[in-house]
Amino acid sequence: MPLITESIGLLAATCTTMAFVPQAIKVIRTRNTAGLSLSMYVCFTIGVSLWLVYGCLLGDTAIIVANAITIVFAAIILALKLLYS
Amino acid sequence: MPLITESIGLLAATCTTMAFVPQAIKVIRTRNTAGLSLSMYVCFTIGVSLWLVYGCLLGDTAIIVANAITIVFAAIILALKLLYS
Repeated sequence: MPLITESIGLLAATCTTMAFVPQAIKVIRTRNTAGLSLSMYVCFTIGVSLWLVYGCLLGDTAIIVANAITIVFAAIILALKLLYS
Repeated sequence: MPLITESIGLLAATCTTMAFVPQAIKVIRTRNTAGLSLSMYVCFTIGVSLWLVYGCLLGDTAIIVANAITIVFAAIILALKLLYS
């Protein structure tokens, strides 16, 4: 794979993985989850868990690492949504 | 790739792509974006755009389709967050 393609993939994975960090911090700080969709976080957490299984089945470290990080923050947001709603 | 692995990947992609639909519907209906993190949606929309570029560079239809759908809903949520904040 050309270096430019690999770099774009790595940057893409970093952005979509780390995007959930500021949302988790915001929910922890404000406890305001009224605007967050429960269906979104249930569906997203299931999806990321399946990506993790998929990565494990393929033995693909990039998929495993990216989704293992994402699942932590998605699960925190989901848990706080359930707690504060 | 074994059928079970491919099926898990397809289900994972469907879940993480469609997860943003209920959030977009919720924002359109309630106009409540106070709890949504602007940083999350800026970072996520950039990330999904990069995944789309990555898919195009690889010529990978699954990556292109999944991210082309996701970007629509992520961009709607981002635009309404900017509009209503």
